Amino acid sequence: MTREQRTALATELRAATHAPERPSVEQLRVGFAAFMGTFAIPAGVRQTGTTLAGRRAVLVEPAGDAASGTILYFHGGSFSLGSPETAMTLTANLVRRAGIRAFSLDYRLAPEHPFPAAIEDCVAAFRSLLDRGVDPDSIVFAGDSAGGGLTVTTCLAARDAGLPMPAAIVAFSPGLDHTRTGASMITKEGVDPFFTREGLGHTAQLYVGGQDPNQPLLAPAVFADLTGFPPILLQVGTNELLLDDSVRLAERARMAEVDVILDITAGVPHVFQAWSESLDEADQALERAALFIRQQV
Amino acid sequence: MTREQRTALATELRAATHAPERPSVEQLRVGFAAFMGTFAIPAGVRQTGTTLAGRRAVLVEPAGDAASGTILYFHGGSFSLGSPETAMTLTANLVRRAGIRAFSLDYRLAPEHPFPAAIEDCVAAFRSLLDRGVDPDSIVFAGDSAGGGLTVTTCLAARDAGLPMPAAIVAFSPGLDHTRTGASMITKEGVDPFFTREGLGHTAQLYVGGQDPNQPLLAPAVFADLTGFPPILLQVGTNELLLDDSVRLAERARMAEVDVILDITAGVPHVFQAWSESLDEADQALERAALFIRQQV
Repeated sequence: MTREQRTALATELRAATHAPERPSVEQLRVGFAAFMGTFAIPAGVRQTGTTLAGRRAVLVEPAGDAASGTILYFHGGSFSLGSPETAMTLTANLVRRAGIRAFSLDYRLAPEHPFPAAIEDCVAAFRSLLDRGVDPDSIVFAGDSAGGGLTVTTCLAARDAGLPMPAAIVAFSPGLDHTRTGASMITKEGVDPFFTREGLGHTAQLYVGGQDPNQPLLAPAVFADLTGFPPILLQVGTNELLLDDSVRLAERARMAEVDVILDITAGVPHVFQAWSESLDEADQALERAALFIRQQV
Repeated sequence: MTREQRTALATELRAATHAPERPSVEQLRVGFAAFMGTFAIPAGVRQTGTTLAGRRAVLVEPAGDAASGTILYFHGGSFSLGSPETAMTLTANLVRRAGIRAFSLDYRLAPEHPFPAAIEDCVAAFRSLLDRGVDPDSIVFAGDSAGGGLTVTTCLAARDAGLPMPAAIVAFSPGLDHTRTGASMITKEGVDPFFTREGLGHTAQLYVGGQDPNQPLLAPAVFADLTGFPPILLQVGTNELLLDDSVRLAERARMAEVDVILDITAGVPHVFQAWSESLDEADQALERAALFIRQQV
């Protein structure tokens, strides 16, 4: 049954019309927003505009009573696209299922603001929650794709800044290696319906901006010391160039004596959780993520 | 808070009086039953003696209404110790939390019945459920330690026998490699409070009985082709010689395009789920396992 859903989705994605060969960032942003706008926002959540450390953010709350706890959400989009709105289907699904509020941050994007601007904004947002008296043990960093990468690098930068750790990290198909040395970068070329190595290289260039990718904040799956990190949940599909980003981060977490769940779904694409309305595996993955969040806060 | 629980448990286990240097199998069986008997059986389940394919079994049911689905449980004990009773705290906790029944099988033990007797009994039990009309898509194989190994090897043997696959596999700290070539066999020596390499070698000898360990049914983490396997949940602690049994099986599952969750808890011992009354991580791991089971049946 659900193997059929996975296959149907893969076929649909492979048949989709592709964008022009080398679109502008502006074209990419418009296209990404349109694509992500096709996913329904689940009922049962309330969105309110707000700010965190001077950056725009969206507070997403359960329509009914919320349990205590806060998700700090970092959207995807290769560090150069996207907004809280493009990831709202994911954020709202987590809020509805975990029953706690989220702040989704509109961090600065490349190429206007290359590395480490996004990380600085995420750390500042975390710090502003702490300054408001929010207990770090009640905060979960969550994100997808580039935002999944930010869950980890924000933790690294927060630790370096002497801030406490959050309660947990939840990352959907995180991008964790700008050296692009994962085996899946080769083995999944042509299998991944969204990314090519060339396409990833193009957007990465915008974010890395000529800086050395051989450092923990640009390649945590290769270089990060995760000692002292909170429990980590990594969810990823096998139809992904970025599969081994999660695999290698999980190895590093295990070596650093950090609780880590590497949750792999076969035959599904990058950030498959977005298809929660049509793919049973997406729905189930979100349920597992919500349970993990409830257990940690 | 719970880091303190983990440390307290590790200290307690390391301080425990150890058994005589080379006890008899009978002494080991008595000691194991006494030790496992110290764990409470949760309220809210009903136990009934029964048989599966001529072997004794215990039917464990929720006291209230049960959802549809069946756990076929394989107890731990190094293939030479244990019974449905010694694993009852784990089986009953899964039944109560997942809300479905379980059959826990009294499979034949080594050295009286070396490899592959246990696997034969487990396959026969699975076949007897199918013969009664139980849908394989409603059956989850679950087990701990040696029984965790049996969840995988029973699947392999069932596939070879032309039987359908169950809906899922749940393995707590499974033993999946009688070649004992995992890196953790060395790196966790002295960290593991239960096992030494020598002790594992002794009981393994009883089960392997001079046969070649270089085969999938004795070392699935090294040799098994997992193609076509159902979703697998592996839960393991980092204080385990057997840690890499799970790590390597998860790698093989990923390579075979099988859904796999590798759920690692730091600083906890072999089959830490048994401490559900005193260790928050045990309770949480059981909750995650129960959700996984409910999602698969």
